[in-house]
Amino acid sequence: MIPITRIGSSRRWSDVVIYAGVARWVEVAEDTSGDVASQIQQVLSQIDATLLQIGSDRTRLIEVMIFLADLQHAPTLNAIWDGWVPGEHPPIRACVQAGLAAGLHVEMVVTAAAKDDQ
Amino acid sequence: MIPITRIGSSRRWSDVVIYAGVARWVEVAEDTSGDVASQIQQVLSQIDATLLQIGSDRTRLIEVMIFLADLQHAPTLNAIWDGWVPGEHPPIRACVQAGLAAGLHVEMVVTAAAKDDQ
Amino acid sequence: MIPITRIGSSRRWSDVVIYAGVARWVEVAEDTSGDVASQIQQVLSQIDATLLQIGSDRTRLIEVMIFLADLQHAPTLNAIWDGWVPGEHPPIRACVQAGLAAGLHVEMVVTAAAKDDQ
Repeated sequence: MIPITRIGSSRRWSDVVIYAGVARWVEVAEDTSGDVASQIQQVLSQIDATLLQIGSDRTRLIEVMIFLADLQHAPTLNAIWDGWVPGEHPPIRACVQAGLAAGLHVEMVVTAAAKDDQ
Repeated sequence: MIPITRIGSSRRWSDVVIYAGVARWVEVAEDTSGDVASQIQQVLSQIDATLLQIGSDRTRLIEVMIFLADLQHAPTLNAIWDGWVPGEHPPIRACVQAGLAAGLHVEMVVTAAAKDDQ
Repeated sequence: MIPITRIGSSRRWSDVVIYAGVARWVEVAEDTSGDVASQIQQVLSQIDATLLQIGSDRTRLIEVMIFLADLQHAPTLNAIWDGWVPGEHPPIRACVQAGLAAGLHVEMVVTAAAKDDQ
C-alpha cells in the first residue's frame, strides 16, 4: 500500500497529510485577535512554513480553497494574495463566504505537490 | 489510462469514485429525521461502511471536509468525532457553516486511501 | 519530481492545474448577466471545453463540488445537471449554499482524470 505521512500532534486532526505525492492541509490564523488582513497574512505565512516543512514551495501549490467569513473582505484578500502567490505558477483558487469558527476571518484548504519520496 | 472505479447506482452522482489510489465520496445521513447528533453518528457510521466496502479503514482517511448547517453544533460534532477518529492516524479536517439541503444538519466530503489495486 | 502542468494566463490563479494524472479547476459563468439557469448551463459548457482542452471528457469526471448562492435553485441545477452528466459514469457531487462573488449564482470546483502523459 502507498504509505500515508501525517504531520502534527493533535488527536482530532493531522496538520498535514501526504499521500501519493500530494500534501493536503488546513490553515487558520494562529493569532485570531488580529483583523482580516493580519489573519490572511498569518495564514499565508503559515502555508509557507508548512511548504518548507514538507520540502515544497509556493511554486508547487495545486489548489487553495478559501473560505472567507465575509466576502466584502475579498479585495483585502486579493491585495495580499497577489503579492504572495508566484505569478508564473499560481494554484487554482476558489473563494466563497461561509460561516467560520468564532474569531476567524479566513480558513484555507491547501493542496500542494510534495517531494516524490514522501 | 488509469482506470476509474465508480460505486453506486444513481445516475446523478456516484456514491464513491476511486482513482489513482484515492477514494472520494460525500456523506449525508440516510435518516434525516434525527437531530444533529444522530445525523453525525449516521454519517460517521456510513463512512465506516464505505471504508469497509473499498477495503480501507479509518486509519487511511486523508481529508474530511465538514459542512455544518449551524456551527453552534461544532461541540456536538467534536464530541462524537473525537470518539470515532483514530487518534494516531487522523485525517486533515476543515469545518465550516454552509446552507445544506432541507433537513440536513451535516454533510461531509471524504478523501481516503484506497487499496492499491483499485 | 512529478511535473505540474498549469493552464491559464492570470497571475492570480491558474485556470487548470494537472498533477499526477488529476486535473483540478474552478468554473464560474463567464457571462454573469444571465439568470441561474443560464449560469449553470455556461458553467457546464465551460467544463466541457476544459475537458476537451486537457484531452479528457465527461466520463472522466471524479468530483464536482457545487456552491450555489441560493439552494432554492437546486431543482434548476438538478434538471440541467441530469441532462448533462453521463449517467453511467457520474462523478461524486456535493452541493451546498455559500456566499459567492457579486452576480454569481453558482461556482463549481472540478476534479477530473487527465490523460496519463500530462
